[in-house]
Amino acid sequence: MKKTLFAAALLASAVTVSAQPSITLFGVVDARVAIGRGSLADAVQLTSAGLNTSRLGFRGSEDLGGGLAASFWLEAALSNDSGAGGPTNTNNQASGAGTGSSGSQGLTFARRSTVSLTGRNWGELRLGREYVPQYLNLLFDPFGNVGVGVPLTLSSIITGVTSTRASNGVAYFLPAGLGGFYGTARYYLGENSRDGAATEDDGNGGGVRIGYASGPLDMAVATGRTEYASGDTRQTNIGGSWNFKVAKVFLVIGRDRRGALRGRSWEVAGVVPLGRGEFKLALSDYSTDAAGNPESKKVALGYVQHLSKRTALYTTWARVENSGGAAASLNGSSTAANASSSGLDLGIRHSF
Amino acid sequence: MKKTLFAAALLASAVTVSAQPSITLFGVVDARVAIGRGSLADAVQLTSAGLNTSRLGFRGSEDLGGGLAASFWLEAALSNDSGAGGPTNTNNQASGAGTGSSGSQGLTFARRSTVSLTGRNWGELRLGREYVPQYLNLLFDPFGNVGVGVPLTLSSIITGVTSTRASNGVAYFLPAGLGGFYGTARYYLGENSRDGAATEDDGNGGGVRIGYASGPLDMAVATGRTEYASGDTRQTNIGGSWNFKVAKVFLVIGRDRRGALRGRSWEVAGVVPLGRGEFKLALSDYSTDAAGNPESKKVALGYVQHLSKRTALYTTWARVENSGGAAASLNGSSTAANASSSGLDLGIRHSF
Amino acid sequence: MKKTLFAAALLASAVTVSAQPSITLFGVVDARVAIGRGSLADAVQLTSAGLNTSRLGFRGSEDLGGGLAASFWLEAALSNDSGAGGPTNTNNQASGAGTGSSGSQGLTFARRSTVSLTGRNWGELRLGREYVPQYLNLLFDPFGNVGVGVPLTLSSIITGVTSTRASNGVAYFLPAGLGGFYGTARYYLGENSRDGAATEDDGNGGGVRIGYASGPLDMAVATGRTEYASGDTRQTNIGGSWNFKVAKVFLVIGRDRRGALRGRSWEVAGVVPLGRGEFKLALSDYSTDAAGNPESKKVALGYVQHLSKRTALYTTWARVENSGGAAASLNGSSTAANASSSGLDLGIRHSF
Repeated sequence: MKKTLFAAALLASAVTVSAQPSITLFGVVDARVAIGRGSLADAVQLTSAGLNTSRLGFRGSEDLGGGLAASFWLEAALSNDSGAGGPTNTNNQASGAGTGSSGSQGLTFARRSTVSLTGRNWGELRLGREYVPQYLNLLFDPFGNVGVGVPLTLSSIITGVTSTRASNGVAYFLPAGLGGFYGTARYYLGENSRDGAATEDDGNGGGVRIGYASGPLDMAVATGRTEYASGDTRQTNIGGSWNFKVAKVFLVIGRDRRGALRGRSWEVAGVVPLGRGEFKLALSDYSTDAAGNPESKKVALGYVQHLSKRTALYTTWARVENSGGAAASLNGSSTAANASSSGLDLGIRHSF
Repeated sequence: MKKTLFAAALLASAVTVSAQPSITLFGVVDARVAIGRGSLADAVQLTSAGLNTSRLGFRGSEDLGGGLAASFWLEAALSNDSGAGGPTNTNNQASGAGTGSSGSQGLTFARRSTVSLTGRNWGELRLGREYVPQYLNLLFDPFGNVGVGVPLTLSSIITGVTSTRASNGVAYFLPAGLGGFYGTARYYLGENSRDGAATEDDGNGGGVRIGYASGPLDMAVATGRTEYASGDTRQTNIGGSWNFKVAKVFLVIGRDRRGALRGRSWEVAGVVPLGRGEFKLALSDYSTDAAGNPESKKVALGYVQHLSKRTALYTTWARVENSGGAAASLNGSSTAANASSSGLDLGIRHSF
Repeated sequence: MKKTLFAAALLASAVTVSAQPSITLFGVVDARVAIGRGSLADAVQLTSAGLNTSRLGFRGSEDLGGGLAASFWLEAALSNDSGAGGPTNTNNQASGAGTGSSGSQGLTFARRSTVSLTGRNWGELRLGREYVPQYLNLLFDPFGNVGVGVPLTLSSIITGVTSTRASNGVAYFLPAGLGGFYGTARYYLGENSRDGAATEDDGNGGGVRIGYASGPLDMAVATGRTEYASGDTRQTNIGGSWNFKVAKVFLVIGRDRRGALRGRSWEVAGVVPLGRGEFKLALSDYSTDAAGNPESKKVALGYVQHLSKRTALYTTWARVENSGGAAASLNGSSTAANASSSGLDLGIRHSF
């Protein structure tokens, strides 16, 4: 549940409260014991973000009349095991990344930092940093793409710094009420000097996503590209879920490229609710056409016990198997090429 | 409009709400497409702060009785195109500056970080980081000293890291009710070790400002100095505005020094309100007595459409012409000495 | 006094307010003129944290029913003289420290970043970063272990980066209602790879503290250890206070180790309340068995004038005398081995 800071104006008259502007302060504090086992080294950590990514944010909106609204959203990542923040990327290139590796990393609104103008009939224009459209289908996943159960559908080695989010973007979202269809298109800028250099377009890119949700079905297709002189990155995927009530099933299929290097991924997953708990299972796979055709396969099993809407206990176990030279490892462990790795999370998630 | 977080005590009795202490959470999220054209390189950016500087802040005050109040103000800069924060300066010297160039820059309360004691009759004592008095007259400007229309009245090359703000300061403000007169004096410390080194006073400085506001007139004079072994910096200026209702006009004249190097500036500007919009025009000039007498002249034209008190759309166009070896350029473009540069902003400003 | 952000749900019905979840925004802004005198160099600073450490935080809790509650606490350090934040440490080792020395240091929740599950009968399980148990007895001090009056009971040279706080921890706290007994045990992780290296346990550690509070008496004993291949650090101490009403007296005795190096400390102190003010006096001492048996002795005298519960003016004077090669100095001054140093604080503390 979210908290709202009320306008000072509400002091004047409680009757008019609902018409006042408001700011919502929100967040997630998620802590887990994370155990990783690999052929080279094991790991034990008390870390964050096993069920949901830890965060702290501020957001609000203003009704401008005539179906028009303005809004903002500032959302920071949070490593609540140490209190550190997380870095952002200023130019959608490696040079815009922070080091973020030590205890000096302060809070940035790297998860989302946007201002929007929304029209009831025409949709939303949104400026700033947020998800790229080509990432969103990877959220058709019972683990929410976080924790040791995170599926293998994302390869930042191939799709790079804009795999998940991009800065300096202009996005358009279709309005609600289109018979179940939804969609977004986004263009973002690397902001390099237009000086004729080969890299002047580096970090420029964009993506588009179209989906359909109706009754038990939700599915979408997306594609995106970011330009680099060293080889453009491309991400194309389709994802969907069907809610059978006794279980909800998920499917994702993806194709990535970085220059001539190609990656392929898939995920099949499901959630079975049971009282205040839910069981999760996901199988996923990532392979590339690099020398040896490296491939990783993963199975993840999880259980969540909800203590309330805001608070849950959870555990997840996962195992990854590598072949063709791949060496994916889990929860901070380290594993040799073609060996396997496993991991276990035990944690608590509290949101506000 | 600002939001207020109420005291828990208000739960006990809604009737006493207005007497409770409060914290105000406030901010600006301003995003713009910024196009720059120069003789060497153009630039296109989706950046922040075209109409007002983006920020996030917390402030509050406490009535201590007898006309006495205590208050605090914490205000951070925000690059809402990427979610990064902005650095501060800890010692009013180059060595106290952060790098702030990449995505690792977290939030600091660099815009203002103060605690105050205020007496109804005697004024305000304020400790911490904030504007220097010698900067404030540069805000007699229809563009609020931000965006592509920012006038040329500030030269951080000459007046250095304390051009706008200083840390480690003690300020005194005159109380209200002096027949239109207002004023402030401030002293700030570089905090170098008192070890007898030539640089032990570096970063020490201060400024004073006296103004008069009555009816349509508002004008003030200010001067300040910061000590450096390599040459003190000085900033002296006069600024004012006259509100003719059909238009408000602005005038600023400034004289700067860094050691033996002198700078001169002026600005003439105006705003014409028209319904929910306003037109702005500003001419400004900066010249120094360095070899060749470099000089830059600027014209800026702007229009703001207010959608509400909190939300506005805006556009600004500006052009700068250089001579004597100057090479000022706009909106991230790059221009050769004595060439010109132009820039265009298109943006939205949302405050809360 | 703390501010509370209410749930949006309260809009629906004022009657149900007290059952809503809430977030508390809280902080301290404390500024002081700090003068230091030493045999090598004096210092004058306008700095923070003379009476209480400056901070900004968010915390909240949720009643889960049946005596169970979930809660979070995020608390950042704040240098309100410049607006900078403070760094944290990600792995309880030197390598996890930020540089934190210049104006680029953003806000981190280094003071406390925890999520808890609390049972009325069984106590509290708390995950994240916070104080180590072996630090808490050092707070039996009238100066709250902050400002120029800070006692000599803490030696970060000997007890290192986990002297005060540790990251990646799991803590257990006894419940209330045990006839005056209280206690905590905590284990924290360095999170190094389990690769068989000599340093794989570096940063792992833990501590335990047991105390008793009843009527005028409060006393506790604590011990803790952090592992390092270069030599474990140990902190053991006993502390207590007795409130005679006309005065409250404090006593702390400590024994530290880093490998073979031993440190010994003691403090005797008192507070005398007088109307809205209070006088403080503390004597403290730290010595080690390093070559020459370096030792520092300190006397601190303070006065606080409370203007309200939230706001106070204060002054503290302190002097340290060194022998055996010690060179402790106060308030940024620098002093030669075996020479003395003194310091004076004049400040204002405002909390919210």
